This record gives sequence, C-alpha cells and structure tokens, in this order.
Amino acid sequence: MPYLAPWRSPLARNLYQHRNQPQARYLQLATTDLEGKPSNRTIVFRGFVDHLPNSSNLLKFISDRRAAKISHIQHQPWVEACWYFPKTREQFRISGKMLLVEAEHPNWSPMRQTTWQELSDQSRTQFSWSDPGQPLAQAPEHNQPPPSQAHPNFTLLLLDPWLVDRLELRHYPHHRSRYQKSGEQPQPSLWHHHYLNP
Amino acid sequence: MPYLAPWRSPLARNLYQHRNQPQARYLQLATTDLEGKPSNRTIVFRGFVDHLPNSSNLLKFISDRRAAKISHIQHQPWVEACWYFPKTREQFRISGKMLLVEAEHPNWSPMRQTTWQELSDQSRTQFSWSDPGQPLAQAPEHNQPPPSQAHPNFTLLLLDPWLVDRLELRHYPHHRSRYQKSGEQPQPSLWHHHYLNP
Repeated sequence: MPYLAPWRSPLARNLYQHRNQPQARYLQLATTDLEGKPSNRTIVFRGFVDHLPNSSNLLKFISDRRAAKISHIQHQPWVEACWYFPKTREQFRISGKMLLVEAEHPNWSPMRQTTWQELSDQSRTQFSWSDPGQPLAQAPEHNQPPPSQAHPNFTLLLLDPWLVDRLELRHYPHHRSRYQKSGEQPQPSLWHHHYLNP
Repeated sequence: MPYLAPWRSPLARNLYQHRNQPQARYLQLATTDLEGKPSNRTIVFRGFVDHLPNSSNLLKFISDRRAAKISHIQHQPWVEACWYFPKTREQFRISGKMLLVEAEHPNWSPMRQTTWQELSDQSRTQFSWSDPGQPLAQAPEHNQPPPSQAHPNFTLLLLDPWLVDRLELRHYPHHRSRYQKSGEQPQPSLWHHHYLNP
C-alpha cells in the first residue's frame, strides 16, 4: 500500500477543480545550469509514481535527453517545480531531487517503456526531430513511423519531493504552509507540516 | 523615443489575446539560492519600463525585501522568467539580470514611489505583515492605515532581458526562436533573432 504524503490530498483537489483545463497539468520547472544560473521552462505533469520500492509521491515528466535541462540535472539534481492553479488561486512549490531514467536504467526500464507506449504518435515523433535548441537545421521528418520500442532520446524524469510550499491566495491574509520530509523512507511520520507567514 | 526589442511585439499580442484573464500577467520566476539550488515562484508582471536612460524593455515586478528571492538575487542576479499563455499556446522564457530598487536607490526612487501609489490598499498592507516564509507568528495586522510613503520593505524588481526564447506549440512541428542581445546599449541592431529546432 503506497504512502501518500499529506500535500497529495490538497493537490488532488486542485487538479480535480481544474479537470476541464488541460493546461492545469502544465507547471514550470527550474533547474540550475552549469554556470550556476537558473533556467525555467513549462513541462507537462504525467502523473504520480507510487509503486516503486521505497519511493512514493514521485512526479513523472518526460524529456528529450538532448534538452538542456538534462545536462543541468546531471550537474545539479536539485530542482524546484512551481505549479499555479488559477481557478482556486493556489500555488504549490515542490522541490527535491530529479532522477533521470534513460534507456539503460537498471530498475525502471519497464516504466519507461510503458510511458512511451501511452504517448500519442505525434508526441513520439518529436524524439526523432533535429537536436532541440540548436539553430534550425532542416524541416523535421513527419512521416517516419514511431517505433514501438522507446526512442533512445526518450527520458523519464522523476521528481522526488523533499519540500512543498503551498500558498492559498484566495484567503486574505493569504494562507501559507510547508510540508517537509525528514528522512529517506516513505513513512507517514516523515512529513512535517507547518504554517508559515504568507 | 524608447527602443522596443523585437520580442516585444509578439509578447504584446499574447497579452492582448489574454486581456480578459488576469492570471495571464502571472509568470514564474526562477532564481538560484545561496547553495546553488534553483528556486521558483509565481510573480505578477507590473508592466514594462522603457523610459530610463540607456535602459528599455525592463520588466517590472514588486517584492517584500524579506522574501528569499531578494537574498538569492543579491547573490546571483541572473534569473529566468517563464511565461506561458494557454490560449495561444506560446511560451516566453526571459533571462537576464534582475536589478533591485530598495528605499535608498540613487536613481529610481521616484519610480518606486509611483509604483507604491498605484497599489491597492490591500496590496500595500502586506508589506507590514510578519516576516514572510517564517513560522506563523501572529495574525497579521489588518487595520493599520497604509502609509502614503512607500514601506521600507517595498522593493522593485527590474528584469533587464538578455535572452528570450519563444516557443509556439500551436504549430506542428512547433516553432521556436531565440532573441539575443549582444551589447549593453539599447540599440535596434543589438537584438539578434534566430530560429531554433523545437
């Protein structure tokens, strides 16, 4: 039975209240580049992973391994995601370490393959496009059949949260609280919840 | 006559197309903390500053000077803002140096005072609340009359863009382009525009 962290329930309520807005599953992921500068981009939330041994509450994302964020994460695995829900006026800031699952990952290759198979053909094709972020080289190839095996550039990103900062702007004064993990094992007692000044 | 950078016109079109959505003026600001970890939060765009000598195209924000982002910026002034527009499916990533305008700034005190006067009473009162991000200490004081002089905690943030990455997801394949400044002076020739692989 996976253990759900105490911030999962308010986050699930926000997702439910935005269920008609696909963009509510878009959030912003900050990384630090190799020079120590921050970098920030929109990324699509692909669901929680709760069934791994000794890991639950992981947020799943996907990326092309040629994207700049991959080299940032290899250098500094700590990231912060910022997730704002406009209807409820709530913000979740989720920080922790990002795990990369590439083709040869010892444990999580099956999950990578399953996630690949759930993608649309259009999404799969993008992993065969020219090197992202480089000067426009040529028209990407459209008609190439997407392989049933995950493309070598297809990378899973798993965010293992360590600290969650929740801000509720619909209250005045605003409500703010922090959920902090104090150990590595996914046990209920290891998440602590405090109220903060907004 | 201020010089408008070439990315201003597409950004203005996006703002116009979202003119009925107040949250379209919310964007995510990434900073690097003192340990080199990224930090990310939603912040409200307060307009462009185009009338300063030798500076135009600055994005204006406000903050409490006790917020963590202020110490991050003092340590590493480079930031990246990520601005996603859901209706048009366009993203702007804007990176550059952030300038802090506190109470005693030699040049920009008048602009700080003007910005303060444009705030709602509710917004002004927040600068008298207890230390943000600290454990909840006491109920914030509500009824204190907001002073007509800017509160000492009231800080202007001016983002001086150096690199703008624009992604248009409504096209398939996606369109991506980069605007890069190559010098300090605000002259038209100093912004270069390139198309990138998405």
